[in-house]
Amino acid sequence: MKATLSRRALLRSGFATGVSAAAGAALAQDGPDPLITETQDWAIYTGDPVDATPYGLPIRFEADVIRRNVPWLTADPISSINFTPIHALDGTITPQGCAFERHHSGAIELAKEDYRLMINGLVDTPLVFTYEDLERFPRENHVYFCECAANTGMEWAGAQLNGVQFTHGMIHNMEYTGVSLRTLLNEAGLGAAGDLSDKWVYVEGADASSNGRSIPMEKALDDVLVAFKANGEALRKEHGYPVRLVVPGWEGNMWVKWLRRIEVTDAAVQSREETSKYTDVLADGTARKWTWVMDAKSVITSPSPQQPITHGNGPLVITGLAWSGHGKITRVDISKDGGMTWETARLGRQGDTKALTRFYLDTEWNGEPWLLQSRAMDETGYVQPTKDELREVRGENSVYHNNCIQTWAIAPDGKAENVEVS
Amino acid sequence: MKATLSRRALLRSGFATGVSAAAGAALAQDGPDPLITETQDWAIYTGDPVDATPYGLPIRFEADVIRRNVPWLTADPISSINFTPIHALDGTITPQGCAFERHHSGAIELAKEDYRLMINGLVDTPLVFTYEDLERFPRENHVYFCECAANTGMEWAGAQLNGVQFTHGMIHNMEYTGVSLRTLLNEAGLGAAGDLSDKWVYVEGADASSNGRSIPMEKALDDVLVAFKANGEALRKEHGYPVRLVVPGWEGNMWVKWLRRIEVTDAAVQSREETSKYTDVLADGTARKWTWVMDAKSVITSPSPQQPITHGNGPLVITGLAWSGHGKITRVDISKDGGMTWETARLGRQGDTKALTRFYLDTEWNGEPWLLQSRAMDETGYVQPTKDELREVRGENSVYHNNCIQTWAIAPDGKAENVEVS
Repeated sequence: MKATLSRRALLRSGFATGVSAAAGAALAQDGPDPLITETQDWAIYTGDPVDATPYGLPIRFEADVIRRNVPWLTADPISSINFTPIHALDGTITPQGCAFERHHSGAIELAKEDYRLMINGLVDTPLVFTYEDLERFPRENHVYFCECAANTGMEWAGAQLNGVQFTHGMIHNMEYTGVSLRTLLNEAGLGAAGDLSDKWVYVEGADASSNGRSIPMEKALDDVLVAFKANGEALRKEHGYPVRLVVPGWEGNMWVKWLRRIEVTDAAVQSREETSKYTDVLADGTARKWTWVMDAKSVITSPSPQQPITHGNGPLVITGLAWSGHGKITRVDISKDGGMTWETARLGRQGDTKALTRFYLDTEWNGEPWLLQSRAMDETGYVQPTKDELREVRGENSVYHNNCIQTWAIAPDGKAENVEVS
Repeated sequence: MKATLSRRALLRSGFATGVSAAAGAALAQDGPDPLITETQDWAIYTGDPVDATPYGLPIRFEADVIRRNVPWLTADPISSINFTPIHALDGTITPQGCAFERHHSGAIELAKEDYRLMINGLVDTPLVFTYEDLERFPRENHVYFCECAANTGMEWAGAQLNGVQFTHGMIHNMEYTGVSLRTLLNEAGLGAAGDLSDKWVYVEGADASSNGRSIPMEKALDDVLVAFKANGEALRKEHGYPVRLVVPGWEGNMWVKWLRRIEVTDAAVQSREETSKYTDVLADGTARKWTWVMDAKSVITSPSPQQPITHGNGPLVITGLAWSGHGKITRVDISKDGGMTWETARLGRQGDTKALTRFYLDTEWNGEPWLLQSRAMDETGYVQPTKDELREVRGENSVYHNNCIQTWAIAPDGKAENVEVS
């Protein structure tokens, strides 16, 4: 900020006249302090005033902690993805500003005044809600992870991208505030739908892609949220402002952004996004369909290719993230030898259900080569599989829902590389 | 963003040639849709690509959700405060970008490479840690609120500022990751300190103010964190990058930013910030000292002066925040008649200890004038007092630690005003 810089310059020149003699004397008396460098003027000059940044951004030293896309991955950045810099984060919350994006026709700009949400189909009274209408229904707060079904998909094909941001960064974890979808469906009335056990809702967004998806009624009436806040504030434009669907534990494609319509139907729509896309082609060429839940998964975020060990031998903190679309993470194990032996990691703050859990292993490293892996377990007893185990079931054509164990090879110089072990 | 705008313009003109005739026909057939306005082009034009914002900011429609300072409040914005826009937030997490600031000599810019933390005084081995050293100790994740002791202080003096951002906005709530202070003190060794029950630590920052504070050893060994991440990412410059102290439940002034030194002492230092400031002058002119804990408090954030009721009669969601420096919030009551009768609010996601809890009352409003209040209770059984009750104990000179019940008068037109009832 130019204003700030010139203010600092001004203060510096003013200050030099009055006090520098005394400060210089003190330094001369004790000899130069090796810790004091040219840039360490913060203890004698003032910093930024409180009106400098009405809405703040990260400090310039953290300029590498950003979303990144991979230009060769898709034909057009309008229908593409970028990746959360999970290598550089800690704790569990993902700030909206660096939470991954996946658009099918770009992030649209939709003002609250123009926003409408229609509920139609097999309901007693079709309804159109304004944004203000939505704010009049009872709200809930929940932390949930959102993971793209294609997260780690490039690893299935053997791309071995050298960075956890790229292998596992299509995930974020935020505190959502919104209205239960159940509440809105009941407002429209489900009497007209008859027996609900075989009914569906079809949800679509206001963007050009519309990104329509079918959700079974059982899930729609369970924990789905029509959300308008994330991490306390309004959804960002790229996360569906002003309203998105939150479908806890299920693949990110169903978390429809700029939500415009919810239709109660007596059958799945079999839309593009649930037939030609977001299905899993098996070895025999047939496709697994309705693979909604994101199974238990984990990955070590540090050390990792973007976060090598730079501090030499001795104490080392290994850390990473674990999550399950089926509920809570109950345990994470870490292997240093490619899966032969395992140690149990310490879980950070007990995660919410269907939310990221942070894990740590406080250990020692003395230059040994490691094959570092993590393995998550969830409250259903499910254990994160190896790639070989997953391949046996799925064959080689599937790219979605790759939740297999990831390996980082740690070299004696502390560098980490994405490798495969079997 | 200019690039995006011109891209949109380009697409628009290209599109018009090929498809507008058909689209126009469809509109003519059905008649103009009253919901479709001039700006609603999002369903036929594409939005922003994924490389548009490597680190995102809020959408332009939310430009009012910012920190605000009050220029007349302090002589200089270098030693001043600004306020979190809590009127516009929901849930519990405060994004760093709009979390209030309080500086005594401005927000300084301190690179990780230049960062040092010294532990000295009554320790076995005085130590100086680099930033990288700190990352090698076991880390913890916790959500805590940070409230300035002066929050709501202007209300004590009867300023009656017309906005919850100004009356209660010197608070934020984030998920911190860091190393327990206990761990670092044990690393230096506390044998030299002897009996710990009467020892203190003196903590100070690297900014010009140094903002030194004494903390009793019992608290230092309990839940104090040396934190380097907030809401998953690095601390922002204005929140103490790269390292700040987190003193759960205690007044914000003790949460020293740009933490540079921790000295183990056999007595409190009686620094400026704990004698002439941050003490509470009583009716007889003596001062209460060591008033560290922030007692249970709550406030309704909507409706409030900055969030009037604009939707007319019928269903209304009343919401707000509650917190206690003594632990968890167990109950919040809401009064519509200035404290004569109370209804129990619904608590959002169960808050962590010493963290913000969101509350809701799903109710009806039909134009009645209300005197709206909230009253928090915490797990110790403490009940948030009225201003009269607090005045009886404290007199009129105290400005810090005003945790009394706040009243908003709701007028028949839905506007809200800051009033006092007794």
